[in-house]
Formats: sequence, structure tokens, C-alpha cells
Amino acid sequence: MPQNDGPLTTFDAATAVRRTEGGGLVAALDPGWDVGGSILNGGYLLAVAGRAAVMESPHPDPVAVSASYLRATPPGPATLTLTPGPAGRTLAHSSVVLAGAGGPTLTAQVTTAALDDEAPVYSRPMPEIAPVEECLSAQAGDDLGGHPVPEVGLRRRVETRLDPATAGWAIGKPSGEPLMRAWVRLTDGTDPDPFVLLLFADVLPPTSWSIGLMGWAPTVQLQVLVRALPAPGWCLVEARASEVAGGWLDEDYRIWDSTGRLVAQSRQLARLPR
Amino acid sequence: MPQNDGPLTTFDAATAVRRTEGGGLVAALDPGWDVGGSILNGGYLLAVAGRAAVMESPHPDPVAVSASYLRATPPGPATLTLTPGPAGRTLAHSSVVLAGAGGPTLTAQVTTAALDDEAPVYSRPMPEIAPVEECLSAQAGDDLGGHPVPEVGLRRRVETRLDPATAGWAIGKPSGEPLMRAWVRLTDGTDPDPFVLLLFADVLPPTSWSIGLMGWAPTVQLQVLVRALPAPGWCLVEARASEVAGGWLDEDYRIWDSTGRLVAQSRQLARLPR
Repeated sequence: MPQNDGPLTTFDAATAVRRTEGGGLVAALDPGWDVGGSILNGGYLLAVAGRAAVMESPHPDPVAVSASYLRATPPGPATLTLTPGPAGRTLAHSSVVLAGAGGPTLTAQVTTAALDDEAPVYSRPMPEIAPVEECLSAQAGDDLGGHPVPEVGLRRRVETRLDPATAGWAIGKPSGEPLMRAWVRLTDGTDPDPFVLLLFADVLPPTSWSIGLMGWAPTVQLQVLVRALPAPGWCLVEARASEVAGGWLDEDYRIWDSTGRLVAQSRQLARLPR
Repeated sequence: MPQNDGPLTTFDAATAVRRTEGGGLVAALDPGWDVGGSILNGGYLLAVAGRAAVMESPHPDPVAVSASYLRATPPGPATLTLTPGPAGRTLAHSSVVLAGAGGPTLTAQVTTAALDDEAPVYSRPMPEIAPVEECLSAQAGDDLGGHPVPEVGLRRRVETRLDPATAGWAIGKPSGEPLMRAWVRLTDGTDPDPFVLLLFADVLPPTSWSIGLMGWAPTVQLQVLVRALPAPGWCLVEARASEVAGGWLDEDYRIWDSTGRLVAQSRQLARLPR
């Protein structure tokens, strides 16, 4: 995979959306943000869709994004077709269709608004977890107790430190509970912002790995809520499935920033690995 | 409110979608499923959108529905415009736009598939809660310790039994934790199905009432996952906010059927009551 050998494109460059002379929106989807083969990560695609939405909104931040993953999205040139909805003083709605050479691959509904980092009225506290330096490194190619971490581009672009308490799967001892926690930050040194949080909302391996079902779990539909502007530094990501049944699983994410503030939540429906 | 005085329309009739001679889809939105004034309940509208989606899908059940609430939807005639996406053997995607006389009020992305009630591989257990007969009745007009339950049509159409442990708000003593649990079933005697679960995914009062912020909390974006065909009888609904901040709150629902099986999950972003 040559895209993993050269210097890394920054997150901002890899998710950039550009307006053409004709007024359309286009992106160059970076092959390096893959989750295996040439399948791009679902959170990466959501960040691209979110950028398109704010370009045509009076508000700067994506606060709610719901996407249907119609087909796997390949790297390369893509167009983003935006249909604006009502826009008010507090929030605006729009829908975005992302299409590659083969046609539409993702449709998203985006709500934009202006986030702040003021203290919440109520916030669920962060779970207890080992500090970053006691967690397990999980960069692509690392060896976790005999299990080399799969060579996926995403894992090279997002520094991932697995909570030992929920990382049994990484050493061949799945816990039996579909729960994972990890500290994450971008390898390129970019601090988290609302677009980075869209990426982090789908950044961990499937929690089904924790119950011994290894393999890729393609996202069918994903909703992310961004709740506050995150502080600089590591984010804690917690992913949990509530039900694994009939060939489906859900993944429920909560993300806290380095101050312990809940900054994002997501839930997806995915197909079970075969 | 005359719509609350006559015999109740059944849920199936109130959410029916009909094909016109011209091939379009229309519904007559029932004024009785309101949450105050002439504002219709968000879950009720989702059930209508879900019915439209399955009419043009090879699959019978809505398994994931994400909706943006563009404007309040008034009762009366409505059109549903469906744009089909890819349809395969396992699942199909589509988008639905619901419009009243004043234009579009709701856009939804719907994934359809075939659900079953086979035993799950993994399922989070139901929380402990008092049995139905020990819970507090909360029908419209009931008096809960001096607080009459607001006269909203929804509360007359959905029998609601509040868990005493999370119903402090109903007797003027909010718990301080934005959490509510209740047993619910349709007053018309219809047993739960996937469309009823879409309704139940937004059926409780805002959990902000539990932290003393009374008032209506309009839904901005709502995602519901339906995970299994529910068994007949009461459903247990749990709603919880994880963060209340900056004029926004989330509402996270989990719904179990009468056998204790997790059958649906939802999350919404809503505006805080003023």
C-alpha cells in the first residue's frame, strides 16, 4: 500500500472541500484514510460531508450529522451536492450527497450551528480509564501480544492507545463484552475540532472483536452529535454495542476531551462481520 | 381541543400512507397525536415516514431511520416524496421528504430490512424497574401529586406508567438527573411493531423536566434503530440525557419489549426549553 509509505497528508488537507469555477463542491478523497483495502473510513467521509455543509451555511459547526452509507466509497475525486434546508439564527439544515466516479455512495443530513466550550448545565462524567502512558499503543504494524495490528491507513493517521481493561481482543483474549475504550489524537499534530470529532465517532475497530467476531463491520447508518468545542490534546473514545443479533450490531460512541468534557456522541447500525 | 373528545383513531389508521392515482404518496396527519397546541409528536411523524419507505422497498421493516425536523409539522394533508437508493437482498436505502401545505417539514433517511425475533448473540439487559402495576399512571388530565398531566393528545393515545424512581418531576421534586423510565403501550390495544417502536422512540416528556427545566424541547435531529420484532404487551422505555449545555440537550432512548429484549434505540438532539 504505497499510500502508507510516504509523508502523511494532514487531516485538514485530506478532508478539504473545494468550490469549482462552476460553483460545485469537490473533494479529493485520500487513499490513506482506509480501514483495509481501498475502503475509506466512515468517520473520514462524514468529516468531508460536514465541511461541505458548513461552506453553504451561516453557521460554522456541524452539530448533528446522520449519514446512510449506500456503498463503499473509493478514494479519488468526489463531488458533493448540497441541498440547503431552512436556516435560522440558531441552526440550519441541509442534505449532502457524496458521489464518486461510480455514483452516490453516501447521503447525509447535516445540522449546523455555533458551538462553544462553556460549562454544561449537566454532563455525564468520563469513565475511569488508565492514563495514556499506561495504555497499549495500536499503530499499524505494532505487535500486541502476538497479534500484529492490521495495516490500515487510519491506524497510522490516528494515534490510538487502547485501555488495557477493554483490549483483551488485541492479545487473543476477547472479553466477551462488546466494549472498547481508547485515547486518540491525530498523528499530524492537529488538535481536535468538530470535524475531527466526526472522524473519531467511527475510529475504533468493531466492538464485535471483543466478543470474538473478527472482521470488518460495514456501517449502514451513522448519526453523530457534536456537543462542544473540544479542548486541545487527547480525546477519550468509548464504543459499546448494546445488541448483536440477526446479522446486525449497533456501536454507541461517547467522546470526552482532555478536560473530561463530553464533546460528542454517535450511534451506528452496522452489519456483522461474516 | 375537540380531537381529544371523540373516539380515538387507531395508530394504524393515524399513520396510514396511501398511494394516489397519480402514484404519489399521501397521508392525513391526525391532530390527536400532538404534544401541545397543534404540534405533532416527532415519533408519530417518523412512523408515517417509515410506512412510506417500506411501500417502495423490497423489505418490510424500517431498521434505521434518521430524520431532520425542519419545521413543526401541522396536522392535515401531507405528501411524502420518496427517493429510492440502492436496494439489495439484505437491506435497502431511501430518503423521504414529508411536506404539509406550507412545504417540507421533515426529511428522513430510511434503511429497510427484514427483522426477526430470534435470540440475540449479545444483548444488554433491561434495567430493574417497578412492575407496571406499581408505576404511576400518566394519562392526560391525571393528577400526579398536584401536577395535572398536560392535556396533550399523545398522552391519551399512549398509556404511560411512570417508574416512581424517576418520576420526581411529576410531583414537583425533580431528581436532578435527566433520566426517565416508563412502561408504555398503545391505548387502542394494538401490540407493538416496528412502526410503533418509531413512535415510542420519542414518547416521553423531555428528560430536562427531571432537572427542573420544564417546557417543550423541540427535536432537531432524531435517529432510531429498530433491532427486533417486539413481543406483544407493554414496552419499557428509558430516556436519558448525557449533556445539557449551550441551549441543547440529547435524549438517548432504549426500549425493551415485554420479554426483556432490547428492541429499539434512539438518540436525538433537541433545543432546550426556554
